[in-house]
Amino acid sequence: MQQADIGLIGLGVMGANLALNIAENGYRVAVFNRTVAKTHQFYEDAGDLKDKIVPCETLEDLAKNIRAPRPIILMVKAGEAVDEQIAALKPFLAKDDIIIDAGNANFHDTVRRLAALGPNDPTFVGMGVSGGEEGARHGPSIMVGGTPESYARIEPVLTAISAKYKGESCSALLGPDGAGHFVKTIHNGIEYADMQMIAEVYGILRDGLGLAPDAIGRIFEKWNEGPLNSYLIEITAKVLAATDKDTGKPAVDVILDSAGQKGTGRWAAIEAQMLGIPATAIEAAVAARSISSLVGERKLAADAYGDLLAGRKLVHDAAFIDALEDGLLAGKIAAYAQGFEVMAGASKENGWNVPLATTARIWRAGCIIRSQFLDEIAAAFEGSEGKNLLLAPAFVERMKTGSASLRKVVAEAALAGLPTPALSAALNYFDGYRQQRGTANVIQAQRDFFGAHGFKRLDQDGDFHGPWSDVD
Amino acid sequence: MQQADIGLIGLGVMGANLALNIAENGYRVAVFNRTVAKTHQFYEDAGDLKDKIVPCETLEDLAKNIRAPRPIILMVKAGEAVDEQIAALKPFLAKDDIIIDAGNANFHDTVRRLAALGPNDPTFVGMGVSGGEEGARHGPSIMVGGTPESYARIEPVLTAISAKYKGESCSALLGPDGAGHFVKTIHNGIEYADMQMIAEVYGILRDGLGLAPDAIGRIFEKWNEGPLNSYLIEITAKVLAATDKDTGKPAVDVILDSAGQKGTGRWAAIEAQMLGIPATAIEAAVAARSISSLVGERKLAADAYGDLLAGRKLVHDAAFIDALEDGLLAGKIAAYAQGFEVMAGASKENGWNVPLATTARIWRAGCIIRSQFLDEIAAAFEGSEGKNLLLAPAFVERMKTGSASLRKVVAEAALAGLPTPALSAALNYFDGYRQQRGTANVIQAQRDFFGAHGFKRLDQDGDFHGPWSDVD
Repeated sequence: MQQADIGLIGLGVMGANLALNIAENGYRVAVFNRTVAKTHQFYEDAGDLKDKIVPCETLEDLAKNIRAPRPIILMVKAGEAVDEQIAALKPFLAKDDIIIDAGNANFHDTVRRLAALGPNDPTFVGMGVSGGEEGARHGPSIMVGGTPESYARIEPVLTAISAKYKGESCSALLGPDGAGHFVKTIHNGIEYADMQMIAEVYGILRDGLGLAPDAIGRIFEKWNEGPLNSYLIEITAKVLAATDKDTGKPAVDVILDSAGQKGTGRWAAIEAQMLGIPATAIEAAVAARSISSLVGERKLAADAYGDLLAGRKLVHDAAFIDALEDGLLAGKIAAYAQGFEVMAGASKENGWNVPLATTARIWRAGCIIRSQFLDEIAAAFEGSEGKNLLLAPAFVERMKTGSASLRKVVAEAALAGLPTPALSAALNYFDGYRQQRGTANVIQAQRDFFGAHGFKRLDQDGDFHGPWSDVD
Repeated sequence: MQQADIGLIGLGVMGANLALNIAENGYRVAVFNRTVAKTHQFYEDAGDLKDKIVPCETLEDLAKNIRAPRPIILMVKAGEAVDEQIAALKPFLAKDDIIIDAGNANFHDTVRRLAALGPNDPTFVGMGVSGGEEGARHGPSIMVGGTPESYARIEPVLTAISAKYKGESCSALLGPDGAGHFVKTIHNGIEYADMQMIAEVYGILRDGLGLAPDAIGRIFEKWNEGPLNSYLIEITAKVLAATDKDTGKPAVDVILDSAGQKGTGRWAAIEAQMLGIPATAIEAAVAARSISSLVGERKLAADAYGDLLAGRKLVHDAAFIDALEDGLLAGKIAAYAQGFEVMAGASKENGWNVPLATTARIWRAGCIIRSQFLDEIAAAFEGSEGKNLLLAPAFVERMKTGSASLRKVVAEAALAGLPTPALSAALNYFDGYRQQRGTANVIQAQRDFFGAHGFKRLDQDGDFHGPWSDVD
């Protein structure tokens, strides 16, 4: 019997879809699941793809059925299950084999796992996969952390199964060890910010202008044909257009306004803090989800404060709708700039050399934040790697006009009592970043006053203390 | 020779001042420093207080000179030095002795250090001390984490040396193990937010209204007589009034606008993220310091964008100055609410039972954020421990009017291109928190659309999925 090209462990929805995607692309995949019945069921359900699938009942069996050097994808629950799986698998693998963790691992775990392997152990690859179930089945975005040798071995399969943007594969090696999982974490952080900014604009349209979901949906649908064109805008239009079957009401009107989170947005925020790099739009989005979950407290607060701004409605005219579109785009630019800065910072800190243009390119299709906008980001980073996106000439032009709209949106929302935490964070990041003379001189003066921390001067080199005793 | 009541290791500025404070309050203190000459120098310089100080050349000597059970304060550099000191000290101590780490420890280290001690080792107390050099010498705010037994042993000394607010001591036991150092971390996070909001108002007065430092200083001086009365407002007025000796210019005008940070603000943000509790005003303040340090990049950005809002000045009238005062107070309320929520969350997570009213009370004097405002917070928490400050009746009334001013300030600044990251974060937190029907329904719809995450409904119990296939 012909040996498989690759192995896959874990036939949950994501793993099963990834295996079918591999088989459909002509590669032979050996599969294993802890529950043997699931392995057989998967094989039985595979239809035409059966002849490319090798169901295995044991890990030994799995290893035997893969052509060496063996690449084996783990698609199991992130955390201890990965460590257990590696330990269980190791006895059957050789030095050149490759264990690929395709789960949503914290990159610190990926670094640790790689470091724990001895010189005769198989190698280890941390691979971020974005695109949900559909992506796994028909083409995800694939962010790989590992050695060039490992990647060369698995590159044909990954290129084949990945999403394509105008024919270009959305799979790439982004650096060693934890680079792939780190980039996936920041992808998710950006996704949080993007979704939150959309929700804020929805809120302004709903509460500020009093529009119904279908009318709001049509606005998003139209925006999807312009520079905001993206998967998230597209599905926002769709969910706003949907009708609940039980009640006949708009679907979004029956859904509880309490957002869940699986933790990757939080990880992104924590990593940014550890690096000392501003990610306020991501932090605002994570916080907004946390606040949304305080349903009971929000009710108490709403009762306590009453309708603080009763009757204040925004003016619904074409100019304001345009400002929302431009403002949302400007907010996105600043939020994405933060996300890419965090990746640049982590890359520098860890010596990963993550290619930012390539990262933007493999996000153009397959993943949740896929968009034409990312094509523009990729172009902006070409030749200006390492520079903040806000300094790329193409984005400078956009922000010059877009920031005016973002200002208007943030100011109007603030006056109307409508929260825009992520859009506000984005605007404040932009305004802080482009401010030649900031206000931290006062902070330095305060710190020197109470803690003798010293300060630098504008006109002389060295460390100085202030003349505070004269005024104390 | 009479034995000492307490020991102190580490005669840097903070340690030396704390030792003098102890001696001045009539307690006998045995002191040790790694460099023996420093110990002798400290003793020689102690003047009248010499007879209360026992200089020790070895740790053994130190232990012998303290009355058992021996409390010994460590005031050494946070980090490994603390571990080394504990290891070096242990051989000379008995089971009932108490090692008190008074440095700026990360509370995780405090928990770890306590856990590492065996049943016959001395016990360990993590103690946050705020107030800088002056506070250490004349009365700091003291936040203790440890057992009631340990605290009972050291309470007389701590009460004596602590700051007093209208006669009440600013020292308290706040919970076991890491509680004291955690509270100190959040104190510092709040301090970051408070300082940043002051700097933002300064920026509006300087760039929006075109006022000179002395004029701005007079405004802060006046505010210090009202509800904003606090140490930070007081010193802001003072630094704004100060003149640089070299140039004759206002001192703040020669100081580089690049703020330093020692990491505790970042720790506060990270802990909040780990707990899933919004701390966006603190995060905004940490980010603002990071942005301020990008002096070269900000120059590039300023050049790239030019004067985006040339000539736009805010209207300088009494009403706007009043709005800045009220808005700053409203921003403070929301930022402090976040900080206290983080402490409540950590307390719950770790089973610490941190008394929030007591925490506010011991911050009323001695520490950097000391203020009359904290007396009001303490009063608000009396009888409503565990509730968000924004729900305390006294603060509901303040926020009802104050939020209108905060809105005006944030909106005007946004339109004028002036960054107000912390004030904006505070407003958005307030507006999100008091919103009965939020916008996370759209986020849940999106998550269900692309990831089948499911959602809850307003009108039925259970988990549901949307009718997206109809519109896909």
